Formats: sequence, structure tokens, C-alpha cells
Amino acid sequence: MPTSDDLAELAASKAQSTLTGRPTVPTLEALLHTPIPCLDHGFVRVVDYMGDDGAVVQAARVSYGKGTRKVNEDRGLIRYLMRHRHTTPFEMCELKVHVKLPIFVARQWIRHRTASVNEISARYSVLDREFYLPRAQDLAVQSTNNKQGRGEALDEATSARVLDLLRRDATNAYATYESLLDDEVGLARELARMNLPVSWYTQWYWKIDLHNLMHFLALRIDPHAQYEIRVYGEALVNVVKAWVPHCWEAFEDYRIGGAHLSRQMLDVVRAMLDGRGPSFDESGMSRREWDELMTLLGRPS
Amino acid sequence: MPTSDDLAELAASKAQSTLTGRPTVPTLEALLHTPIPCLDHGFVRVVDYMGDDGAVVQAARVSYGKGTRKVNEDRGLIRYLMRHRHTTPFEMCELKVHVKLPIFVARQWIRHRTASVNEISARYSVLDREFYLPRAQDLAVQSTNNKQGRGEALDEATSARVLDLLRRDATNAYATYESLLDDEVGLARELARMNLPVSWYTQWYWKIDLHNLMHFLALRIDPHAQYEIRVYGEALVNVVKAWVPHCWEAFEDYRIGGAHLSRQMLDVVRAMLDGRGPSFDESGMSRREWDELMTLLGRPS
Amino acid sequence: MPTSDDLAELAASKAQSTLTGRPTVPTLEALLHTPIPCLDHGFVRVVDYMGDDGAVVQAARVSYGKGTRKVNEDRGLIRYLMRHRHTTPFEMCELKVHVKLPIFVARQWIRHRTASVNEISARYSVLDREFYLPRAQDLAVQSTNNKQGRGEALDEATSARVLDLLRRDATNAYATYESLLDDEVGLARELARMNLPVSWYTQWYWKIDLHNLMHFLALRIDPHAQYEIRVYGEALVNVVKAWVPHCWEAFEDYRIGGAHLSRQMLDVVRAMLDGRGPSFDESGMSRREWDELMTLLGRPS
Amino acid sequence: MPTSDDLAELAASKAQSTLTGRPTVPTLEALLHTPIPCLDHGFVRVVDYMGDDGAVVQAARVSYGKGTRKVNEDRGLIRYLMRHRHTTPFEMCELKVHVKLPIFVARQWIRHRTASVNEISARYSVLDREFYLPRAQDLAVQSTNNKQGRGEALDEATSARVLDLLRRDATNAYATYESLLDDEVGLARELARMNLPVSWYTQWYWKIDLHNLMHFLALRIDPHAQYEIRVYGEALVNVVKAWVPHCWEAFEDYRIGGAHLSRQMLDVVRAMLDGRGPSFDESGMSRREWDELMTLLGRPS
Repeated sequence: MPTSDDLAELAASKAQSTLTGRPTVPTLEALLHTPIPCLDHGFVRVVDYMGDDGAVVQAARVSYGKGTRKVNEDRGLIRYLMRHRHTTPFEMCELKVHVKLPIFVARQWIRHRTASVNEISARYSVLDREFYLPRAQDLAVQSTNNKQGRGEALDEATSARVLDLLRRDATNAYATYESLLDDEVGLARELARMNLPVSWYTQWYWKIDLHNLMHFLALRIDPHAQYEIRVYGEALVNVVKAWVPHCWEAFEDYRIGGAHLSRQMLDVVRAMLDGRGPSFDESGMSRREWDELMTLLGRPS
Repeated sequence: MPTSDDLAELAASKAQSTLTGRPTVPTLEALLHTPIPCLDHGFVRVVDYMGDDGAVVQAARVSYGKGTRKVNEDRGLIRYLMRHRHTTPFEMCELKVHVKLPIFVARQWIRHRTASVNEISARYSVLDREFYLPRAQDLAVQSTNNKQGRGEALDEATSARVLDLLRRDATNAYATYESLLDDEVGLARELARMNLPVSWYTQWYWKIDLHNLMHFLALRIDPHAQYEIRVYGEALVNVVKAWVPHCWEAFEDYRIGGAHLSRQMLDVVRAMLDGRGPSFDESGMSRREWDELMTLLGRPS
Repeated sequence: MPTSDDLAELAASKAQSTLTGRPTVPTLEALLHTPIPCLDHGFVRVVDYMGDDGAVVQAARVSYGKGTRKVNEDRGLIRYLMRHRHTTPFEMCELKVHVKLPIFVARQWIRHRTASVNEISARYSVLDREFYLPRAQDLAVQSTNNKQGRGEALDEATSARVLDLLRRDATNAYATYESLLDDEVGLARELARMNLPVSWYTQWYWKIDLHNLMHFLALRIDPHAQYEIRVYGEALVNVVKAWVPHCWEAFEDYRIGGAHLSRQMLDVVRAMLDGRGPSFDESGMSRREWDELMTLLGRPS
Repeated sequence: MPTSDDLAELAASKAQSTLTGRPTVPTLEALLHTPIPCLDHGFVRVVDYMGDDGAVVQAARVSYGKGTRKVNEDRGLIRYLMRHRHTTPFEMCELKVHVKLPIFVARQWIRHRTASVNEISARYSVLDREFYLPRAQDLAVQSTNNKQGRGEALDEATSARVLDLLRRDATNAYATYESLLDDEVGLARELARMNLPVSWYTQWYWKIDLHNLMHFLALRIDPHAQYEIRVYGEALVNVVKAWVPHCWEAFEDYRIGGAHLSRQMLDVVRAMLDGRGPSFDESGMSRREWDELMTLLGRPS
């Protein structure tokens, strides 16, 4: 976490306000520069932003001025754009955050290519002694029905044992790292760092447009995403809500809260509405698809 | 150009200033919202921006606060980044402009893919009666030594004749366009527009990061670029100078004002410095490369 | 269209076959190099491709060998990937086509940024006398309920009049273009071309991966896309079917033939299945969304 | 490395050859499917490719046929394109490789965003017991003049001690990983993997176009790149040489073997050629720039 020097510098940043002719969002200004804690040592910190709900509307209208009519019309246009997947106006807003996150989370995060990244370099800097250690309640067994997920929580005794092992190995790894870097050995930093586990914290500046950010969030707050990246996703959702509330509302209604039905699923729904409820066997769907549809329709078998 | 309603709206935008905790650049604020004229009916208008010289430094340092030490150190770091082609910190600044430009210029412009664009749609809107007509002094013959450039200016009589032809055909094309759209025919706009020449003006919102913007400018203010797009390039150079003066200075010194020498060119330069001035025949270079090198070295043959 | 020299060269290309250890698709090989006609003078011509249905499976499995088990398992995995929007394996196939198309179609096409393009340059080459002239049956009035679409076909007399006007203006424009380029004037090609309308044909090489190609096609074969680009979209659909039949089948079932239901739409469907058919007034939806949902469910009001 | 089953499957792939009408490169076909060893357990394996030297020429000419005239003319055009940074024709070739590499190398590699990647998932699969252990001669102290590089090799005794530490910690980490996954604990794979260091091997399929591949290689075979990624870069250079020899020759002459001189550097060179050899103090350059220039000109101070 920030040192006291950092905090002093942050406080200074926050105190400074200047006049601008750009679109400004007071609810997001209130969040600027302050780290939002994530996991045990991580955070998301809003560094800068460009645009607001009105900027989306303005680009869609390619108009001269502020592009704003009445709030209601703007909200309607944003919903229309979202519903019809007119994505380019949402690229007109941009967010820049400073993030501190475990390496294994960073490796999932970086898969999203349409963003700008500047990461701290372990070739250049000595990394701090900070690694992720889950809370006992977040430790869980391998899921039996989801090959890439977790199932039930571990019992208390096993949790304690797991945490001991993780803490012990991370502590040893860092002690070795330090001894490799010390004056006696003096190993190059780019080599010494290879001893550190992927639970280690790294940091980066990350800049992305609103369209790609919402796509990132849809994938990363999904229940199938790993818990540790979901924590960051949820922190960013709160930022987006404070920044562009109409865009987020539309995204929730049309993307996250909605569902894509396949051709076969639509056929089944139509038949059910006609009172010809087809059975699973008649549907031509896989068992898993069928179950997903029934859950979606509130009719779990 | 803007109507009086538009101008009233622009004036209103400019009058509005709000407080922000974001980095702000007073010299760019002064340019916000005001169209910079380009060609006969076009313009570039700064709509929004994110970041400043300090934001580049901050990303490079992945530091907590403003990332600024002393102005001199920041300038030095920016020059170091530019010299060593560390490009990602320059992606941390973003510019959004509203541009009005002829379609044939837009077709060159859009080749740069790393930007966000919202263009006015001629399927949706009826286009105004605005086409590009060059000034007499900008009309020139086909270049004899550059297959894609122009040579000497036309004489006065020929210029006048060319302008008459261009004006006549554009006027006819728009008259036909209007008659296709009128109540009697009522042709769909998406079909009627096919009669308009590529000299017609279109408009778009264009958003791009500083790294990609500088790359765009290096190509588009180059003497080999078509004059009409260079006009827009030069307008944007002035915007960038007002926005991130240290970045632009470094870009001019290390990219635009510099030159890339090939392996063979470096060999020739080394030999010349040793007093073994190799002749063209010994150089293993093409005649054109040789001439380029000699011009660069201030020794035109 | 190809000259006789071009056709001789094409025939020569087709006659040449070499052995390769790469995945090869006989049904696509049969289409290689032969232009597929589009509109009056345009075409799509497959120049090269990389990968097949098996390459998608192989990337998903990150396996050593061909990645193929049984055809049925592969098809199932492809459908699973498509259903769960695991898009990266579909990026592992690549298609390269040579396309001849009107400039106004090219302007819609180029909006898709995740592709590589090399276009013929009218700064460098003199364009041929080839412009798009619609068939009489494709001329239609402006749609009254879709601001960017076309409605009913024109009557015969009006059609004839429209075609006369389009042909006359295009012919005049080209005559002027030629006279600007002739020895007497010698205007630079980059200037003369500005007199040509956007109905003029251009050509490019276009290379794109399968994921982005399918996304392009979903947008461009949609009934809301302009007819002229749909023609190219349909030609490309036939190419994709010949190339990666399992991928296309999955894309049709899960994307094109399916539909995305919003949160509100899902609520309505659930209520209807429970026999509590909510009225439009109770739905919280806009009239247009309601109508879209009812059409989708086969219950038009 | 491949198991015997994998090797049998590879042998089967290699034995299969089919006829194709696509451009084919015999020297690259000879490398297809066979892993090229890198570091102690890694490899690069060519899986597929699209295009050849002729495909670059063909796109540049946007011609109908093979685009090949005489070999000499093609080579000349490729050199012209490279010299003038006409990059889009080089995007028309594509390479797909299967790579096995340590995680810390993968983290540098993934910074190149213009590529397609499918990586093995440690949420889904249990990772093998394979970690990178440098050779004794590759262990070196931190560089004193390059903050992100390595200097002289360690002495024998220190090397042995470092390798012991790295091997011990990696072995322990994997033993813990196994015990976390065993039946008694059954920790979810996505959690257990956090104990493994970044020296662990991962695998991916990586697909990239030739333009972006050459840019990647220019950065990654540079002496300032970390040794471990340079090994992969050199393996890929040999692939590119076998695939598109004219493109690589041009890239070596104009990019890698050349140098970019700044405006100030050009001024100094011109003055030196005029016999007015400016001193460092007159040059307006930093000491480091001056030294770089003198080294480049073969005149180290």
C-alpha cells in the first residue's frame, strides 16, 4: 500500500483543482486519486478520465455542441445504441487507472489487448515483499462439474494448513530473492525475480475506452471468472457507475442482465408459448444447453 | 461551417468551466471547442483531451503521485523514452477532435486503424452542398519523378479551366442528388449519395492516443503526403505543441528531424569520415538511395 | 473485370499445385483464385487461407498434433466455444481475398479495423471507366420507418429516369477526369480523381482472421445493412461455408439465428410462460422493443 | 518436451502432404511441425503459415495474378517498400507457432498486442514439473551501467550456489503444488497454481503477421533484450529467413543493421564531414547520445 510519502503526494493531488472547459463528472471526481482496496494488498486507483454520458451521445450525433438535449432523450439514445450494438460511440470515453494486482491476475487481465499498459519492471526495480494470501473463506476445492472453477470451501483445519504452506513457500522464495540480490551474490534482477511465485504483486497503469472496458467487465465479473479478478472487476463497476450511469444502466439491462438465445432455444421458447412444450429429446440441444435454458426461463428441472 | 445556432452553442460550451482534479493544460484549454479552419470548408476542432507531458512521465515511472520532479528531469525522461522507442507511455495521453474534411482525404486518414471514429452517415442524413474546390495556386501537373505526387503549378489559364470543370461537375452532381431525393422521386438516401464525388465534405469525431497521433502526423505532414491532408496534419501539429510541448520537441528531434540510415548508408558515412570516400559504384546502393543519402549529408551531387 | 491477360495468369495459377504439410481444405481449394461476381463490375476472389475447422480445435486444446479426435467431438467443441464466446481459437484461421467494390461500399467495409488492407491508389494509377449502376429492381424509395434504409421499389418510369441521371453524371465525371489528365492539362492524378463519384470501383487485398470475419459478416448480411454490401457479405458466407463448415454452422445457430434478449425481455418471457402475460404497458419496455420481442416470439401484434 | 505419443502424432503430421493451389515455401515446409529447442525445456514449432515473398509484392501491386515478374524486380520492390516504411504489404503474410516458454518470458512476449494467442490454462490443467534453470554460464551480476541488464558472469562457486537455491525453491514449490492438489486437500487448481514461480513453463499457440513479427524480432533480438527471450527471437529469425528471405534481407539492411540518427546527430555528422568536427560540448547532445553516435560512426572516444 502507499507509503506515507505517497499518501502526502496523493493528498496534494487531491487538493489541486483547476478549471477546465472539458466535460467533468463530479461523482467521479470524488473518486479520483484515492486507492480502492482489492484483496489483501492490491488496489484500483482512478488517475484520469475523458468524457461522460453526454460524450457518447455527442459522438452518435456528430453534432457541434454539447450534444445534449434533455436528459431523457440522451438516456433513450444511449439505450438505443446499446441495444443495437452501435459500439463506436462508447469508444469516445476513456478511463485510466493505476492497479496493484497479483501476477496470476495480471496474466488473465492482459489478455484484453485493446488497452494501453505500463507495468513496473522487475528487471529494473527490486520488488517489494508483497504476495497475495487468500482469506481462509476464499479457499475452496476443485469444482467437480466445472473443470476451471472452485467448489465448496475447505474446512477450517485444511484451510489453515493450506495458508501455512502458501505463506511458508512465499516467505522462503522472497528470502532467496533477497539473498540472490545481496552484495555477496549480486545476481542481475532480471534473473533473481524468476524465483518469485505468481502470487506476487505487480503494478501497472492501464488505460482503456468505455466500450472495451464494459466488454472486459462483462467477462470478469461473470460468476465463471476467477474470484480474485472478480474483486477488481467489481471495484471497476463502481467506478463506471459513478462515471457514466446511463451507459452502465443500459449495459446491465441489455448485456449483463440479458441472455443470448440460440436458434434452437428460440424454437423451444416459441413452442412452449404455443402450449407445445417440447421435451429435451425433441429439442435437438445438448443436455447442458437445455439445462441452461430451463434455468434462464425459471423452470429448472 | 457552423450555423449561427451552432456558434451560439459553441460560445456556451466555452463559457462553461468546471473544477477538475485531472491534469489540465491551459494552452490547450484555450484552443478547446473553436474550429481551426482547413481548406475551403473544413476544420479541426478539439473536443476533449486526457493527460499532459507529466502523464507520460508518470506512466513511465508507474509512480503514485503526479510523477513530476523538476521540469528538467521530466523533459530528459521524455527525450530518453522517445530516443529508445519506449512507446507505451505516450499511449497514456488521448486527444478527441471533430473534423470536417473531403471524402478523398477521409479515405487516406482512415487507413490509420488505431483510433476511434464516428462519422456522419449519408444513409441517415442529407449531405450539405459543400465540396472541396482547390485554390488556383494548389493546382499542379503530375510529377514526372514521383508517380504519386504533383509537380509545378498550372498556368493561370489552365487553372481557371480546371476549376470551371470541377465546379461545374460538382454543381451538377449535387443538383442531381437533390432531384433524386425530392418528393417526386424520393430515392433512398443511401442510393442517391452515390452520385456525389469524393471531393464532398464529410465529418467525424476522431479519438486517438498521443503515440499513434504522432505516428499519424509523421506520415501526414511529410512532403510526400498529399497537400490536402498535410493541411490537417499541420493544424494538428499546432494542437499537439500546445498540449504536450516536451513530447513534440522530442518527436521533432528524434523522428521528424532525424533520419534512418541503412546498414549500407552507415558504411558509406564511416568510410567518408575515414577519408575513404566511396563512390556510388562502390556503395552497393541504388542510385535513388545514394542521392537520398548525399542530400541528407548536405552533399548533393 | 479481368482482362484476357489476367485470365491467362489466373488459369496458370490454378493449374499450379504444390505439396504442403499444412492443413488443406479441398472444398476451398476449388474456389481459389476464381473471381465470384458481385454487383455489375465487382468481385470477391479468394487468394489464400490458413487453417481449417481442425485448427480451431487444435488451438483450443493447445495440443501437439493435429488436435483431431473424432469429427463429432471436434464439432461439439467448436459449438461449445461459440456458445461460450471463447473467441480466440477462431482467430487462428485467416482468409485473404481480392475484392473489387464501389467506393461507397469500401467506406462501410473499412470501418472494420481488425484486418489488413492494401488498396489500389488513385494517386498512383489512373482509374478505369467502371462505376456501379444499380439494376432497376434495386432502386427504392427512402424507407419511412427506418431512417437509414430503403422502402418499396420505384416504378418502372421513375427507375429509368434515375438510371439515366446516374449514368449521365458518371459518364460526364469520367470524361472530365480524362480531360484533366490529358496531355494538354496534365493535372496530377491525386487532384483529378476528386471529380469521380463514390459509385466508382476500387480494389483491395483484404486479410482477416475467422473470428473478425464472422463478426463482419453478422453485421453485413443483416437485413439492416445496405443491399450493396450485403451482396459481398453473401459471397463471403459461401466462402466460409466451403472453408470451415463446422464453425459456420455454430455461428449460424448461436449468433445469426439466435437473438439477445434484454433483462426486461427475459422477464416478459418468464411471465408469459407462467400464464401471466404482461401487457406492453406493464413491461417497462419501449414500443419498438416490445414489437421486436413479439415478432421474435412469433406473436406479432 | 513431447511424449512418445506426441512424437508419433508429429511424425504422422509430417508424413501427410496434400496438394494446394496456395503459395508454398519448400524451405519452410521442411521446418513444419518439428520443435526447435529453446532454453532447457522450451521450443518453437511452426504450425502453419500463409504467403511468401511474392505475396508481399502481389499486395503492393494489387494485381490479379501471382504478382511475380522476375526475381530481381520483386527483391527490388520489397527493398523499396521496407526503405519507405510501406508496412501494409508485409501484413499479408502470417505465421502460426506453438511455443513452450517460461512464464517470465511469456510476460514480456505478451506485451505485443497485435497477435492472436491461445495459452494453456492452469485453471483447467495441472502443470507439469518443468521449470527453467539457467546454465551456469548464463548467470551474471546486475549490470552497473544498465539498470535493466546483466553484467559479467558469476564465478563458478557462486553460480553453483545460485543454481542450488533456484532448484531447491522450485522443487519445493512444485511439491507444495502437488500436495495442495492431492486427494486429501483437493484445492482448486486456480488457487494451487499461485504457489509456482515465474520460472515455470507454459505453452501457447501464437499467430502474427510478418510486419508485426519483424517488429517483435527487432525488439527481442536486440542486445538490450533479456537473454532468455533473445533465444526465442533467434529461433524465429531462422524461421523467417527460411520463409521470406527477401523480406528478411531488407529488414536486416534497413532496420536492424541501420540506425536512426536524430536531428542533432545529423548536424554533427554533416559538420564532421565538412572538417568542422564539433566537440561534445558544442553538440547540444547528452553524454550518452554522444557516445552512442561515436560508437555508431566507428569513433569510440
